[in-house]
Amino acid sequence: MAQLPEYAIIVAGGSGSRMQQALPKQFAEVAGKPILMHTIERFHRYNPEVRLIVVLPQLQLTVWRALCQKHGFNLSHRTVAGGATRFGSVKNGLKEVQGEALVAVHDGVRPFVETGTIKAAFGAAALYGSAVVAVSPKDSIRELTQEGSRAVPRANYRLVQTPQCFRASILRRAYEQPEQECFTDDASVVEQLGEKVALVEGSYRNIKITTPEDLVLAEAFAREMSNQG
Amino acid sequence: MAQLPEYAIIVAGGSGSRMQQALPKQFAEVAGKPILMHTIERFHRYNPEVRLIVVLPQLQLTVWRALCQKHGFNLSHRTVAGGATRFGSVKNGLKEVQGEALVAVHDGVRPFVETGTIKAAFGAAALYGSAVVAVSPKDSIRELTQEGSRAVPRANYRLVQTPQCFRASILRRAYEQPEQECFTDDASVVEQLGEKVALVEGSYRNIKITTPEDLVLAEAFAREMSNQG
Repeated sequence: MAQLPEYAIIVAGGSGSRMQQALPKQFAEVAGKPILMHTIERFHRYNPEVRLIVVLPQLQLTVWRALCQKHGFNLSHRTVAGGATRFGSVKNGLKEVQGEALVAVHDGVRPFVETGTIKAAFGAAALYGSAVVAVSPKDSIRELTQEGSRAVPRANYRLVQTPQCFRASILRRAYEQPEQECFTDDASVVEQLGEKVALVEGSYRNIKITTPEDLVLAEAFAREMSNQG
Repeated sequence: MAQLPEYAIIVAGGSGSRMQQALPKQFAEVAGKPILMHTIERFHRYNPEVRLIVVLPQLQLTVWRALCQKHGFNLSHRTVAGGATRFGSVKNGLKEVQGEALVAVHDGVRPFVETGTIKAAFGAAALYGSAVVAVSPKDSIRELTQEGSRAVPRANYRLVQTPQCFRASILRRAYEQPEQECFTDDASVVEQLGEKVALVEGSYRNIKITTPEDLVLAEAFAREMSNQG
């Protein structure tokens, strides 16, 4: 079987509200550099041949270009204007994918994803068509019910991360569906087609930076890594 | 209604294996002091009258005493030898609770719990009998099924933290039951009695330190707080 080309759609749609900051979280600096640059570097490190599609809100495209200039960031990538929702943004990014391929969709604010995780996710997608990275919850889980809530066995649940990888043909069909409220990630969109989604073991380090606490952790991770050389 | 006395059973049963370290995680140092001391201080800061019961593995009791001496740690607390499981440890701690009271059960390795959270949990337990602190998941959730897994609506789930607070009479009845595998926290034990458990909003800062990554975050939190004075 010929190797399919690999794409990564990196979705960076944040407006900054959850971080209580004016700066969108994907542009917040960690170790002196916008988070989004770290994320792009991760995919480049996995495979310099991966075609990178970065989806940003229309209004941020020029800011991003200026940031790339300022930081001398020259990893080749294509930028695309996002939609009103994550669904719309992935859909726009997908238009840049040519022919049959493997497509990873990844959060722009998950800059610590390991090479091994990306590799495993692409590998599982090549094999099964659809694969998402997930980890076991560390905490007990409760399900909300009509009467209040109840304990559920946490071993039966997984917390979903990204990348989420798919054959392009499957992902295209999935994103032709009308958007629904239950579409919280790409796996849920693909599943709506009746497709099975394989799970790939993630890492607790692959955090999504969404709150000021996460930014503290990100700085600490980055510092730790640079100390290790 | 007369104010009920308040107890906190602080469960520190870790042996160190998950941290890939010889030192049990509750004794790992954050900002120059064992994590367990930070945790105890949190409850003392909430209310110096809270009666503190610290449950430790039998073999660690003398180590703990030595650590208290070394660090000049003199907040009044009682120590109790733990059982083979968390269930057994809480049960042993509960023997030290006298008469009707409100009892918080808290993880020894959750040193960043806020005063407001402790207060809200005790308050809800006074009102409803049972209350646990929980937060909304930040990630999408999947449920494992016979055929693989499926997306479930994350808005219907909560990730459970501690403290978990109860009227002593309820908690005693709960811990008279034989231990079951589904007992992953105190709420699940109490629920088995048919008791309703109220939910109290927690905080993403109230992390449980279980992995080396968590320790990095804990150091960063501690540094941040000391910078704030």
